[in-house]
Amino acid sequence: MRIGIAGCGIRGQLFARALAGEPGVEVVGMCDPSAGARERAAAVYGGPILDSHGELIARGLDALIVATPDFAHRAVAVDAAAAGLQLMIEKPIATSAEDAEAIVAAVEAAGVSCFVAFENRWNPAFRKLRRAVEAGELGDIVSVTAVLSNTYFVPTQMLSWAASSSPAWFLMPHVLDLATWIVGADPQTVVARGRRGELAARGIDTWDAVHALFELGGSAVANLRTEWVLPEGRPSIVDFRVDVTGTRGSFSIDNSDQGVHAATAERYTSVGLLPEDIDGHEQSMAAWMVRSWARGLIAGKPVGPDARHGALITRAVELAHRSAAESTAFAVR
Amino acid sequence: MRIGIAGCGIRGQLFARALAGEPGVEVVGMCDPSAGARERAAAVYGGPILDSHGELIARGLDALIVATPDFAHRAVAVDAAAAGLQLMIEKPIATSAEDAEAIVAAVEAAGVSCFVAFENRWNPAFRKLRRAVEAGELGDIVSVTAVLSNTYFVPTQMLSWAASSSPAWFLMPHVLDLATWIVGADPQTVVARGRRGELAARGIDTWDAVHALFELGGSAVANLRTEWVLPEGRPSIVDFRVDVTGTRGSFSIDNSDQGVHAATAERYTSVGLLPEDIDGHEQSMAAWMVRSWARGLIAGKPVGPDARHGALITRAVELAHRSAAESTAFAVR
Amino acid sequence: MRIGIAGCGIRGQLFARALAGEPGVEVVGMCDPSAGARERAAAVYGGPILDSHGELIARGLDALIVATPDFAHRAVAVDAAAAGLQLMIEKPIATSAEDAEAIVAAVEAAGVSCFVAFENRWNPAFRKLRRAVEAGELGDIVSVTAVLSNTYFVPTQMLSWAASSSPAWFLMPHVLDLATWIVGADPQTVVARGRRGELAARGIDTWDAVHALFELGGSAVANLRTEWVLPEGRPSIVDFRVDVTGTRGSFSIDNSDQGVHAATAERYTSVGLLPEDIDGHEQSMAAWMVRSWARGLIAGKPVGPDARHGALITRAVELAHRSAAESTAFAVR
Amino acid sequence: MRIGIAGCGIRGQLFARALAGEPGVEVVGMCDPSAGARERAAAVYGGPILDSHGELIARGLDALIVATPDFAHRAVAVDAAAAGLQLMIEKPIATSAEDAEAIVAAVEAAGVSCFVAFENRWNPAFRKLRRAVEAGELGDIVSVTAVLSNTYFVPTQMLSWAASSSPAWFLMPHVLDLATWIVGADPQTVVARGRRGELAARGIDTWDAVHALFELGGSAVANLRTEWVLPEGRPSIVDFRVDVTGTRGSFSIDNSDQGVHAATAERYTSVGLLPEDIDGHEQSMAAWMVRSWARGLIAGKPVGPDARHGALITRAVELAHRSAAESTAFAVR
Repeated sequence: MRIGIAGCGIRGQLFARALAGEPGVEVVGMCDPSAGARERAAAVYGGPILDSHGELIARGLDALIVATPDFAHRAVAVDAAAAGLQLMIEKPIATSAEDAEAIVAAVEAAGVSCFVAFENRWNPAFRKLRRAVEAGELGDIVSVTAVLSNTYFVPTQMLSWAASSSPAWFLMPHVLDLATWIVGADPQTVVARGRRGELAARGIDTWDAVHALFELGGSAVANLRTEWVLPEGRPSIVDFRVDVTGTRGSFSIDNSDQGVHAATAERYTSVGLLPEDIDGHEQSMAAWMVRSWARGLIAGKPVGPDARHGALITRAVELAHRSAAESTAFAVR
Repeated sequence: MRIGIAGCGIRGQLFARALAGEPGVEVVGMCDPSAGARERAAAVYGGPILDSHGELIARGLDALIVATPDFAHRAVAVDAAAAGLQLMIEKPIATSAEDAEAIVAAVEAAGVSCFVAFENRWNPAFRKLRRAVEAGELGDIVSVTAVLSNTYFVPTQMLSWAASSSPAWFLMPHVLDLATWIVGADPQTVVARGRRGELAARGIDTWDAVHALFELGGSAVANLRTEWVLPEGRPSIVDFRVDVTGTRGSFSIDNSDQGVHAATAERYTSVGLLPEDIDGHEQSMAAWMVRSWARGLIAGKPVGPDARHGALITRAVELAHRSAAESTAFAVR
Repeated sequence: MRIGIAGCGIRGQLFARALAGEPGVEVVGMCDPSAGARERAAAVYGGPILDSHGELIARGLDALIVATPDFAHRAVAVDAAAAGLQLMIEKPIATSAEDAEAIVAAVEAAGVSCFVAFENRWNPAFRKLRRAVEAGELGDIVSVTAVLSNTYFVPTQMLSWAASSSPAWFLMPHVLDLATWIVGADPQTVVARGRRGELAARGIDTWDAVHALFELGGSAVANLRTEWVLPEGRPSIVDFRVDVTGTRGSFSIDNSDQGVHAATAERYTSVGLLPEDIDGHEQSMAAWMVRSWARGLIAGKPVGPDARHGALITRAVELAHRSAAESTAFAVR
Repeated sequence: MRIGIAGCGIRGQLFARALAGEPGVEVVGMCDPSAGARERAAAVYGGPILDSHGELIARGLDALIVATPDFAHRAVAVDAAAAGLQLMIEKPIATSAEDAEAIVAAVEAAGVSCFVAFENRWNPAFRKLRRAVEAGELGDIVSVTAVLSNTYFVPTQMLSWAASSSPAWFLMPHVLDLATWIVGADPQTVVARGRRGELAARGIDTWDAVHALFELGGSAVANLRTEWVLPEGRPSIVDFRVDVTGTRGSFSIDNSDQGVHAATAERYTSVGLLPEDIDGHEQSMAAWMVRSWARGLIAGKPVGPDARHGALITRAVELAHRSAAESTAFAVR
């Protein structure tokens, strides 16, 4: 399986490392328009690193990982689908319903598979939650409540393109996908409320926070909170907690506090258990995900979720932004 | 200060105990239409326990505590106000905007003070939060997110009148008042979503869960979750957590886990630090509250919040129920 | 009850504030040899602040609180006892068994009461633990394990006399008293191990850490850890956790994390629930303790624990130091 | 690499599953004297399952995993070493210093490698701790404090041979090895105190709890607590927490609370993140360990720790038992 990686950022590098040594897989090349990103990727990947996805596709690929910035998936994905490549696209599949539909159309026209990289489906905590739900231990799901928020570090230092995104674009797809996966139902309606002003004052004209309520399937409520203005003194750059209430049981997950804390004279840090390197092999949910995807391709059984689901999540999050901006409520589908 | 207590339930008994020995205060009598409740109260209160609030008022009071079930405040409060008594009324002041306005009208017509017993303003954790906000340590408030949920124990065993209430009526006034107090602004709009079915199937025809988003003042969002269907195996009958995100800092409070846990062969319990008995004197937020109220009356400086605020909270929660029922959005004022 | 306070440091000031307004109590004066301490105390106490305990005793007292540095209790306590005053002495009663025995002798010769201020007996968490033990909910006690450690702040900034003390002198009396109170038995033997070097290198020639194992009564083990070298980036200057294992149940208490956390750009802080000010009245375990002591004096029923118990704790901690220094084991009594 | 597994219990089955599909490895057979254990293993392992280790060795092996009960390692290990097999032995290597030395002698006489399966060296939390220590982030280690305790479930239901073991034999090797690995030094002395009575009364004549203090290298103290009498209502059958205090930093690890909690009407459970199944492949510290061991054998670079270290841990734990029994102190080496 000849795989290319478009995007040499944190995620592209991670996927290159995670696929190294995977039986039956060759990472044929990477690409990025930024010289700096190409240089950084060269430190972890020894193969060819090209300027454009066109050059990369021209090398002859079976599959392409799209790990460009969120708003820049469309052109790469459409070209790759047209070239007949199997796709893995980072979440969200796009940051507009229009872009998302264009990708779905290209994928379906080409008859290729397209996996949207909702990596939390490989998170051990959520897998245990889902097995408990499937086993009926929680009964019917009443509420899925999640916070997925970042400190200022993410919009002001980690992402160069934060003003083209938002906490809801960057974070809500994770937890909305998770809610649909846990409940086994799609979002029907959304209302959202938010707050702007502080990031704008710091030169990044986007939302500080977006809260949204989704109705899922017949009766469950998903209550999703995303913020980009947490103070940097917190023990983690992310606050990621999920509570699920069912008619017969409940599950609470704190991904940002797994019981490991480090302190120095200056800082207090919540240390995540994963990733961990075992004999030169990264063990993490993202690594497990990309390997599962590659194994699925080799076995001819592509893993999900697919582009159509990815587009639904994008449409729902787009409507959440509109609802927050206009103080209104919307049907998602 | 001659004080009467209408309602001989858990709360009425607590107030009787808390005021015992308070300088300048005499608890003149209690009343309850239920013989069982009167009997239970007699175990902790040695004075006269009457059948009706009319008989109690006739004893000659300066002030009355209204600790009847939530839906039964109106008649007692209106009669007491008409009799010129100062009032303390349990939250919510009423379970309909109409009842609440009737109480406000009676209080204002009589020119008496009316304190609505939002006891969380005496909770040490929230007091510390509010001082931090007042000191500017959190900057401007972006989000107030709260869960205040109960296990099935509360609607199915603790409250005989659960079907006349709901998780939102019983719990949301606490956290909505808290949000207004922290932010220093009233709710402007509300959208809510909820879920019914499980309690109804168990014979209590009310909501299982209600989630609401309020806009407060110019820009803050209050995200409030209330549920009555948590499983009884949880370490506490209440899940009560509040996160406040400001532009310069954040505060997280877990009232249902204060670091004390007991285990036996059968159960795991989260033990609250308060109440605690010190030399026969209850130390707790409810006890501190009712003593503060009594001292305020004696000093001629009634403590707040007042009936008008109580009525606003009731109107907002009533609209949250309508929004959840009709999947719509409302302006609160 | 005319009460004097010897020592104008943090604790002396706290006791002055806590007794203000207490019925039947007059704080007649304070004293401290340090002009700086006297000045700081003047900000919270309006009465006379004298240079020496002799002058204070000469004012005519019924009782004296000894809140001088730990190593300086003896002279004050012996003089006060000789003058016939009831005593409350901060823990440890002394930092040598010899000083402790001298205080016991003076107190017994004078026939006065002497309360040693083990304030954790007024800590709501430990009171709930003790009631559970008394109710038999834990069965027989197997282990009492405690950590009570401080960041460098305490020895290097808070205490001017740290080199005359140690983590074991400053902290272990708290948890050893607690263990005896919970188990209902005295320490029989002690072994301890410790570590020196880092504080010495910073100019404070004392232990960095002392760990001790005590046998209590017939069969329980108390495992006590005290350190003074925790990093200052931790959320609290204290790490104070107690686990009790009984044959039928267990109790775990984290005093340094009560579920309230504040974050700013620079710091993450665990906020304690107490003390809290209610209408100008401090609510805290130390305030409750000193008021209980005063009420006990007024009622003629002095509260415990007494000087003999305080001396036993001091002897046990002294032996812990010797055991750590000499890598040996000792019988406490 | 032809590998056999002696012992068909929980651990033997785990190793069989974990090695399935590992490149270059064939699990040639398993053995167990118990017909029931053989039957249970047959559900997860399809190869030959024999009655005795002699029959298994006769099949022709390169290496043998010794996963028999702790007290039964010696005969198997000595025979296998004599047959020239590489060894992996579960911790503790033996439950007497004499048995341990016999294994060391056999291994050294045969010139084979012998890995003692201290699996916590593959625990992501401890690996992160160790890297922090190696990077100097904690400075010099002052204290390693650990609790590793079980509920009654382990001695009364999980282990048929609990009376031949103890909490200290079953649990302390884990945390003592961990302490030596973190500090980079061997135990020098030990003092221990313990408690017997409750398990004996329940028909299992062993210790209820053992606490031990070890001096490690020049100056660090390891404070290790092991109990087998925790109540079964706790959220986990294990209480496993490690605090490391260094002169420049600290690390706290709670392995028994990784932030995932499940509740039903009857129970509250702390859910561990690992193991997790990814595409039919177990991801867990034990699985990573046994694969690392197998890869090391194939590469000719056996992973540690070795038999001599295992024997030192056994001698130290044996002395801890003696110290607890006799209330004395011992030099370990």
